[in-house]
Amino acid sequence: MKYLLSIAYKGTNYAGWQRQDNANTIQEEIEQALYKLYKEPITVMGASRTDAGVHALGQKCTFTVDKVTIPTDKLPYAINANLPKDISITNAKIVKPDFHPIFDAKNKTYVYKIYNHEFRNPLTGDISWHIYHKLDLDKMKKAAKFFAGEHDFAAFCAAGGSAKTSVRKINFAKVYEEDSSIISFEVNGNGFLYNMVRIMAGTLVYVGQGKTEAEDILKIIASKNRENAGITAPPEGLCLKEVYYLR
Amino acid sequence: MKYLLSIAYKGTNYAGWQRQDNANTIQEEIEQALYKLYKEPITVMGASRTDAGVHALGQKCTFTVDKVTIPTDKLPYAINANLPKDISITNAKIVKPDFHPIFDAKNKTYVYKIYNHEFRNPLTGDISWHIYHKLDLDKMKKAAKFFAGEHDFAAFCAAGGSAKTSVRKINFAKVYEEDSSIISFEVNGNGFLYNMVRIMAGTLVYVGQGKTEAEDILKIIASKNRENAGITAPPEGLCLKEVYYLR
Repeated sequence: MKYLLSIAYKGTNYAGWQRQDNANTIQEEIEQALYKLYKEPITVMGASRTDAGVHALGQKCTFTVDKVTIPTDKLPYAINANLPKDISITNAKIVKPDFHPIFDAKNKTYVYKIYNHEFRNPLTGDISWHIYHKLDLDKMKKAAKFFAGEHDFAAFCAAGGSAKTSVRKINFAKVYEEDSSIISFEVNGNGFLYNMVRIMAGTLVYVGQGKTEAEDILKIIASKNRENAGITAPPEGLCLKEVYYLR
Repeated sequence: MKYLLSIAYKGTNYAGWQRQDNANTIQEEIEQALYKLYKEPITVMGASRTDAGVHALGQKCTFTVDKVTIPTDKLPYAINANLPKDISITNAKIVKPDFHPIFDAKNKTYVYKIYNHEFRNPLTGDISWHIYHKLDLDKMKKAAKFFAGEHDFAAFCAAGGSAKTSVRKINFAKVYEEDSSIISFEVNGNGFLYNMVRIMAGTLVYVGQGKTEAEDILKIIASKNRENAGITAPPEGLCLKEVYYLR
């Protein structure tokens, strides 16, 4: 039986999603929890390799077991009982044997949060990027819209990615303010290059600081040159909100 | 010179505000930071002795120094540089020598947050009480209003308090829903008994669960009997939002 799990986690204390030697990862924690449940080694496949310190509300992963010992609706409770508090399975469903968590994904939504206040906020410090100086929200709202559409996002890709093409389609990109000085950048696309959302967020902060004009986003995209974009925003502000599937 | 500081902190890793032997406290962290700054032992006096695990966005404390080596507007930056990330000074102002952070307080606002969802949320887990079963929000909204007014709150006071009288005036008490399944209980009063807000929150959860009727709040208050109120809600949901002063 093949299962698809939805996972929420706080990435602060992890070296990212993907299992690696000598480091604590989300994938390993889930595999250990499944081992305790099924008494056999199980490998999970994630929809996205989130980086160290990055959070998720709607990460997905699949795994396959022969034994069907736990009813599907009870599975999240059973796995959560074996997971640390900063990881939580929020849904489980049965998928077809050929279902693939990466290739069957239609699109994904990420949210990048900025705490824009003179002094740090300990209650949101782990899940937002603290920017001291007041950002121009209107300019950032205007700039974010220029990301929408199908573009070659080479300028918004860190070295080290393995993608064959840097063309991606962004379905929406918007900036909005929540209470308590939190500015959110929410973006949905059919795929994202390595560090793409964090470089977009860093570039939007440049716009909010007046270092870059909102209209320059299209020029930066057209240049296909990483040096023209802003800095890579730190991981703590990023959250994988949801992965949507074709079937 | 006497200063009044505003302080935000995440109480998760502390044994509360008040300095004590063999335990890490907010007061001690601030006093150590001030010692590094002024090179002399300084005792601070807080407006509220928040319990272990309780948070603050607007805690206050005073301290007095002879030397005026740091401009008042630079003081928060200077102290923050010597504080851990889960504590943040957000304001400093000069007050009169006879100003008292407890006796000069006009009223305080607390917020108690409940995460009401089937599965835990790692991103809000440290700052909210997780309640699995769906609460009746309308009943809780109705119930909260009954706390308003001047009452003897003996039924909402844990043993161990040192107050001479258990009469307190609640200026407002309201329940409202934020996004992501967060239910907030916000209450302002001229003073609070030991564990009073947490017992109020626990009682509101009983109302939300149908164990207690909204109208029963007045009867519970009138009974002056702690056994008639709900459980003491856990500390992680509580936050001292603001302390307001007469002068």
